[in-house]
Amino acid sequence: MTDGTGAGTHRLDRLLNPRSIAIVGASERNHYSNLAMRALRGLGFDGPLQLVNQRGAPAYGMESVTKCSALAEPVDAAYLCVPVAGLIDTVRDAIDAGIRNLVIVTSGFAELGGEGAAREAELKAMCAASDTRVIGPNSLGYRNNLGRVALGSIPFVEQPTRPTIALISASGSVASSVINYGIRQGTGFTHVIATGNEMNVSTADIIDYLIGIPEVRAIALFIEQVRDPATFAAAAERARLAGKPIVALKIGSAETTAAVAAAHTGAAVGDDKVFDAVCHRLAIVRVRTIEALVVTAATLAATGPIARPGVGLVSISGGICEIASDYGEAAGVSIPQFAEPTRAALAAVLSDLGQMHNPLDMTGAAVRDEDLWIKVPQILARDPAIGITLINWDVPSVAEPSMPNTLALIGRALAETTAPALLIANSENAVNEHGRAYLDQHGQLFSLPGIGKGMEAVGKLAWWSERVGRPPLPAAAPAAPAGAAHPVDERQTLDHLATHGVPVIPTRIVRTADEAVAAAQAIGEPVVLKILSADIAHKSEVGGVALNLAGDAAVAQAFDTMMATVRERAPAAAIEGVIVAPMRSGGIELLVGIARDPQWGLVCAVGLGGFWVDALGDTALCLLPAGRDDIVAAFRSLRGVRMLEGYRGAAPVDLDAVAEVVVRIGAAAAALGDDLAALEVNPLLVSGDRIEALDALAVWSTQ
Amino acid sequence: MTDGTGAGTHRLDRLLNPRSIAIVGASERNHYSNLAMRALRGLGFDGPLQLVNQRGAPAYGMESVTKCSALAEPVDAAYLCVPVAGLIDTVRDAIDAGIRNLVIVTSGFAELGGEGAAREAELKAMCAASDTRVIGPNSLGYRNNLGRVALGSIPFVEQPTRPTIALISASGSVASSVINYGIRQGTGFTHVIATGNEMNVSTADIIDYLIGIPEVRAIALFIEQVRDPATFAAAAERARLAGKPIVALKIGSAETTAAVAAAHTGAAVGDDKVFDAVCHRLAIVRVRTIEALVVTAATLAATGPIARPGVGLVSISGGICEIASDYGEAAGVSIPQFAEPTRAALAAVLSDLGQMHNPLDMTGAAVRDEDLWIKVPQILARDPAIGITLINWDVPSVAEPSMPNTLALIGRALAETTAPALLIANSENAVNEHGRAYLDQHGQLFSLPGIGKGMEAVGKLAWWSERVGRPPLPAAAPAAPAGAAHPVDERQTLDHLATHGVPVIPTRIVRTADEAVAAAQAIGEPVVLKILSADIAHKSEVGGVALNLAGDAAVAQAFDTMMATVRERAPAAAIEGVIVAPMRSGGIELLVGIARDPQWGLVCAVGLGGFWVDALGDTALCLLPAGRDDIVAAFRSLRGVRMLEGYRGAAPVDLDAVAEVVVRIGAAAAALGDDLAALEVNPLLVSGDRIEALDALAVWSTQ
Repeated sequence: MTDGTGAGTHRLDRLLNPRSIAIVGASERNHYSNLAMRALRGLGFDGPLQLVNQRGAPAYGMESVTKCSALAEPVDAAYLCVPVAGLIDTVRDAIDAGIRNLVIVTSGFAELGGEGAAREAELKAMCAASDTRVIGPNSLGYRNNLGRVALGSIPFVEQPTRPTIALISASGSVASSVINYGIRQGTGFTHVIATGNEMNVSTADIIDYLIGIPEVRAIALFIEQVRDPATFAAAAERARLAGKPIVALKIGSAETTAAVAAAHTGAAVGDDKVFDAVCHRLAIVRVRTIEALVVTAATLAATGPIARPGVGLVSISGGICEIASDYGEAAGVSIPQFAEPTRAALAAVLSDLGQMHNPLDMTGAAVRDEDLWIKVPQILARDPAIGITLINWDVPSVAEPSMPNTLALIGRALAETTAPALLIANSENAVNEHGRAYLDQHGQLFSLPGIGKGMEAVGKLAWWSERVGRPPLPAAAPAAPAGAAHPVDERQTLDHLATHGVPVIPTRIVRTADEAVAAAQAIGEPVVLKILSADIAHKSEVGGVALNLAGDAAVAQAFDTMMATVRERAPAAAIEGVIVAPMRSGGIELLVGIARDPQWGLVCAVGLGGFWVDALGDTALCLLPAGRDDIVAAFRSLRGVRMLEGYRGAAPVDLDAVAEVVVRIGAAAAALGDDLAALEVNPLLVSGDRIEALDALAVWSTQ
Repeated sequence: MTDGTGAGTHRLDRLLNPRSIAIVGASERNHYSNLAMRALRGLGFDGPLQLVNQRGAPAYGMESVTKCSALAEPVDAAYLCVPVAGLIDTVRDAIDAGIRNLVIVTSGFAELGGEGAAREAELKAMCAASDTRVIGPNSLGYRNNLGRVALGSIPFVEQPTRPTIALISASGSVASSVINYGIRQGTGFTHVIATGNEMNVSTADIIDYLIGIPEVRAIALFIEQVRDPATFAAAAERARLAGKPIVALKIGSAETTAAVAAAHTGAAVGDDKVFDAVCHRLAIVRVRTIEALVVTAATLAATGPIARPGVGLVSISGGICEIASDYGEAAGVSIPQFAEPTRAALAAVLSDLGQMHNPLDMTGAAVRDEDLWIKVPQILARDPAIGITLINWDVPSVAEPSMPNTLALIGRALAETTAPALLIANSENAVNEHGRAYLDQHGQLFSLPGIGKGMEAVGKLAWWSERVGRPPLPAAAPAAPAGAAHPVDERQTLDHLATHGVPVIPTRIVRTADEAVAAAQAIGEPVVLKILSADIAHKSEVGGVALNLAGDAAVAQAFDTMMATVRERAPAAAIEGVIVAPMRSGGIELLVGIARDPQWGLVCAVGLGGFWVDALGDTALCLLPAGRDDIVAAFRSLRGVRMLEGYRGAAPVDLDAVAEVVVRIGAAAAALGDDLAALEVNPLLVSGDRIEALDALAVWSTQ
């Protein structure tokens, strides 16, 4: 519950929604101070505002005091725009004055490294000791448009009524671009928060705060680096369960971007593919441009989750229908063909029976019979495969549009259809006051700016809608007991997997040719011999693998040859023996590779074996712990997925069964504790009903 | 040479740039006539304009006559907006009156099929007999903004000065959307032409006309169907050699779009991947949205070809640099790192030496020292890898922008750098009168609307620039002599390939087991046996292939087994014998498949063999005849290209040598004449230096 100001009882409430504030460093000669005052006046902040400046000079027609401890009244939060040299003293003064919430624009801290980092450490310790919360340092601060309060220097822009998006941005200039584009699209921002160095208030903390504010219908992020992954994941999961979408523009997909980001703010951008997996797990919608950030967030904010992924589109332009059909398919949008009852209902209202395709070109019929603009969307909204109806018409931009009746009927359709409906323009265009009034009048929060961006946004909407309703994510696996054993060789690793229910190939370890022959007879020939040594990662490169052996002589000779070759090629390796295993042939080889990401913990890559990984890089990532569904989805996203679906008459792979094995491999990895750097099962052989780990390797970060 | 009105001596000149015109069907109660008059008045057409209407009633304050033959003065071209019932008679009257250029908006012709198609055939014959050129029927006509003349009903919009783009569109409503978006971006159109049914004037004819008009700096197309591929290809090649870019939004990539298009105008959209190959060959830039059509055409029009593909970007926002870096890489844009002399020159002007990455974040340094806005772009423009410099700043939208000095310096940089330079905005925004004035003042025709669209457009610019300067395309292969032999079985097909210099595997044909044994001995074992029958396309499915045979007994037994199995499984097949060939192993199997596209003729698909094609669909297409470079480029575009580049220590494939063989296979296919439907070499085995066709199949459209 809120009072419409975004207020509540969250620990960041007094910081981000203060009732009384101070500007420290206030002066008409201070650019940051001026911007802050302009924002407060633009918003019409009506709480107590006090000024502090070193000389106690008046500013903005108000008196000031020389330090916070001289302030007449208590303040919830203060904005500090003072030079770096005096910043520590200023903060100490503010804390002494009882102020526990600060926004610090001053730069010269961790982003510089070295001395700056030391300065930030001092500041952080001081704030921790007094439980003082800080946005920044090195942050342009924030604006809370709901609470009509700003502490910061983001250039002020008038917001449309009914803002829906909260923006959290690592970059003040990107934030300005996002706001400006959003406002041109007729969508407004409840909050805009530049996070700066995130010394003790992170993007994740702010997400957590925003979830509780009903007016915030979507959270948009511009991120360079996630600084506290666990908090971030928890906040994102809380947002998902609350049905509050998060849309993220995170840089770092290009190799060179990491260098730019390091120079920009010192951020370590992390592995981009892992962040993709993070987004997948947490239902965070990832976008690649400023425009897509706004359009996607505004779309999700406007409709909330849709019940079905299918999109129905109505137009009077055949050309637009064609472009939408093409672009929609390319963007992965489901544009289902109409169900029979839909076709029958359409036939009853459309004179031209020839055209029954989705997207639906109503042709000139809708000019002759304007009621089609309301009848047809209502029919589409009832189609069992359609979750959202798009009506193709440009938002009006003049007070007296040329076809007012059509616009009025479209407006009714947008307001009255039983499923979500949005207007989609022919091409990108700004929404001006007339457009906003039209949308408002018909209960619309947003319209889609053009076919390209519009189809992309509804594709993301469908993706998010499917994920937002899923059950809560499994809790992280309990930490492994300290001092857990470290399996080091293939045999120990397979044994460890077996204790977690992973089917592994039966093996025997032998130390002489005679033992090898006996083992082969016991196991059943043909067999494989593989050298067993914790010192040898790539066995075949040193002659440590012999395949398809049958007959005592062949087994014995292979044993002797292998020992001689390995001793010659890897003289330093300690050899524990030779593994004898049944020779498997046929089936499909999979790869399951688990690695520890420094930020996100255990990440599981699945793929087809061999060149699928080597030549195509065809793997898909999941964060662990993952459910079977996530793992099945990862396999299904592989380019080589056809190989699993019954390629050339082979039986299709039982992906649910494979996923269960992968879940167990993940549990086995988690049980090995934090020293585990990687655990690879390669191949995991699938042959008919049999799923079996043939080889496994554990890699440790400490030995 | 022109007089600035787009005039010339092209056969379409009087049609598209008439000096005297008539409107037939002129009436204030006729919507089409009204729109046509509004366009003429908006343009300020000042030549003779006469009106025709059935009743001879005055309209628009002018007199009219009842038929064309009653017109007082001759007219270059007439616009016919009369009901379909009287259209044929009206055209006859116009022709009788000596009018040889018509624009017909009337619908009810070939787009309806049946009776409409018959009506169009009659119209076409009448026009052919009198050499009368027609835009339409079923066309909204055109507007020639250079010549200040319009014959048609596309809603009039005021154009910016210095228009650069000519638009040809299959759809009137898409044309309107394109124009509206273009004008919002500050770019204007020299011509807008809706082609309708293209009865005797096609998109290709109009392209041919536009090439000769210097003010037309880019040609933008919205296409459903290319109706005359040969003319289209010739016009596109002429445009390429003239350095005039063509940008095409062609629908048809989604499977369902074909159905929508068929219902919309009866157009057969064709194979979309083949059209991609057409674009590749003809240097046509393909785009997927209305916005990209405008932005790409305007960008190419503004800069012309760039000498190098590299893009340099300058900003004062680190966040924007990161987004540009990420998005640029995803869009295939080359953002090269700076050369050493560039870095040295930058170090001399930038105080902060840490930041030397492209995109270049000049940080606050450029606020303190505004001259950096001109110095830095000039340094970047001289970098040996950079072909275009982008300066990141929003186009001004107010008369008195907040940072006039910065804008003035940026303007100078845009005008003065030695290589092309463009402004790139933070996010999409309309360009208003102030923005256009600023661009005009600094010699700029266009600015890039945001990082996403901007980076995509410069990526397309680089792609086009590389192709536009290539030598003329080879002429089509001469037609094969009629009655050329039709090789039908594998042996004949391989023999035919050999006569065109394609290396093929040596084979012998045998009819008995004894002959097979003798052949195997002569060829050298191991050998392969393959059934030889023109009736069997898939030999292995009927037991018609036996591999890796050595020893007389094995060969004889395989022969007998094969004959028995094939006779049982394919009892109707006429068996000519059995092919004996050496068994090849190792190497890489390629696929070369040539097929005849109904529109574009022979198309060559190359790929890696087997599952690369079956499971991944990993093939690349070229139109034939193709040069070796095109074929090498096709192989390099394969997802499995790493297999050709020395996978797992294998020797890399000599792609030039392979391409030469593919060129010969193409020549062999062309020599087989128009009855050839397909010619597939699968596999083409590459093993070390040896390239060899192991199997081949010809398919005939007539037998």
